[in-house]
Amino acid sequence: MSDFQAWSRETATRVESALAELLPASRIAPSRLHDAMRYSTLGGGKRVRAMLVFGAGTLTQASDDRLKVAAAAVEMIHAYSLIHDDLPCMDDDVLRRGKPTCHVEFDEATALLAGDALQSLAFQLMSEYKLADDAGVQLRMIQLFAAAGGSRGMAGGQAIDLDAVGKAITLPELEYMHILKTGALIRASVLLGAHCGKTLPQSDLDHLDRYAKCVGLAFQVVDDILDEEGDAATLGKTAGKDRANSKPTYTSLMGLAEAKRFARELLADSLEAIAGFGEGATRLREIADFIVHRER
Amino acid sequence: MSDFQAWSRETATRVESALAELLPASRIAPSRLHDAMRYSTLGGGKRVRAMLVFGAGTLTQASDDRLKVAAAAVEMIHAYSLIHDDLPCMDDDVLRRGKPTCHVEFDEATALLAGDALQSLAFQLMSEYKLADDAGVQLRMIQLFAAAGGSRGMAGGQAIDLDAVGKAITLPELEYMHILKTGALIRASVLLGAHCGKTLPQSDLDHLDRYAKCVGLAFQVVDDILDEEGDAATLGKTAGKDRANSKPTYTSLMGLAEAKRFARELLADSLEAIAGFGEGATRLREIADFIVHRER
Repeated sequence: MSDFQAWSRETATRVESALAELLPASRIAPSRLHDAMRYSTLGGGKRVRAMLVFGAGTLTQASDDRLKVAAAAVEMIHAYSLIHDDLPCMDDDVLRRGKPTCHVEFDEATALLAGDALQSLAFQLMSEYKLADDAGVQLRMIQLFAAAGGSRGMAGGQAIDLDAVGKAITLPELEYMHILKTGALIRASVLLGAHCGKTLPQSDLDHLDRYAKCVGLAFQVVDDILDEEGDAATLGKTAGKDRANSKPTYTSLMGLAEAKRFARELLADSLEAIAGFGEGATRLREIADFIVHRER
Repeated sequence: MSDFQAWSRETATRVESALAELLPASRIAPSRLHDAMRYSTLGGGKRVRAMLVFGAGTLTQASDDRLKVAAAAVEMIHAYSLIHDDLPCMDDDVLRRGKPTCHVEFDEATALLAGDALQSLAFQLMSEYKLADDAGVQLRMIQLFAAAGGSRGMAGGQAIDLDAVGKAITLPELEYMHILKTGALIRASVLLGAHCGKTLPQSDLDHLDRYAKCVGLAFQVVDDILDEEGDAATLGKTAGKDRANSKPTYTSLMGLAEAKRFARELLADSLEAIAGFGEGATRLREIADFIVHRER
């Protein structure tokens, strides 16, 4: 096992145990709601966003105690978005991370409320725990985090995605949608991780943001490639679903070969953006490489 | 028009214009999502929560600039909860504030995302604007606000409410449900308004919280009475709906006369809790009185 593999497993374990601790216990009322929140947040996923929080935190020598809270909050927002995205009125998906989706395992109303409560809990954690030396910095962290999830971030991207089903859209429109839908939270993950540690000059934050933007887009391009090539057993979700739903994807708009070339180009761009950071950014480089070369 | 009527109209106007300004404009993409957010937040409602923010802020001499942001954030959380509550998988309601509900006017997916994005925006505002002299106090305000909306607050109360449909529940169970479902956000409204101004000693905050708890419960009891007695034209929503849905209510459990007596008792308790505050709490007294004696 490479050093990066060991680190990413350790990070995933750390986030998993932070989530297990920070999510309300199932025995606390309302139990069914807490069960659903735990069901959809624990025990699964690649934890890419958590890795980015920890990777950026390594650069600014942030403490693990802070990073695990920020990572848990980001993963809660991600989990809530998946629960709502899987609902019948949205993508109507029955399989997620190899398990029945939340509304299939529980019911639609519980899934809706579990998503809602996960969003609230993420903001509760971001304000309850000390994540920055300066409380003013922490308020700005919450602000960027909230903006990333909102109508001009993730939720807005989902709205554009829904509106695009069955329509002919252009590559710039597809890119705009993904920059919001998955890119915004990925960028927030990187910036939140960095803000947990030593203060960086604005130019460094700009480099980090450029890195995060490229990584976020690469993540989506690779997702489309895997959806086109993969099977349900490897992906843990319904494969070829996007094509079946006439959803525009990078592979449908660019073709498979060109999409792969584009992913490699984004990887190179992401690495270039943080080239000046030296040793401290090793994890961020490894994560970018992992995102582009992953097989699920 | 009484002085209180003039004040409450002025407060409603102030919050309405703050919301109009703070919600993303419809022309900003994604337009349909922003339209839905504005549709469900603007131009309606009694603005009781906003009044409580301003009423408590009067006590601590908070500035209107702060109070209007906090009030807008609270009203956004309230609006999001109504949008989600009205969805087919929840209460399946078609009429709200005399207008078609969000998913009827738009579609289910847009309504779902509009609610999600309203929640994000509320936290964005609470972190973006200066609401307290001390940033640490503002972090605590966000924490209490997030907790009020979450699984041990509003969202949890909705889960318990759903679970109670068609079941025989006891009065204490009904009270517990309402303390979470509507009470938590009403209590948060009072505390947020107070925190926008001068620091109060903990004993005063405890009195305020006691006031808010009584007012929150009274609000729900009166809602049940109005639902039992009212008609759709006055209420702006489907009357008798709770009974038709076999939802447990104060009137069904206590009878109408006893529920009315209970509401008056809660009013007296709420006034007693803030009896020591003198002139500064006049608005809070008037709001409690308004909540119990309103006709819709």
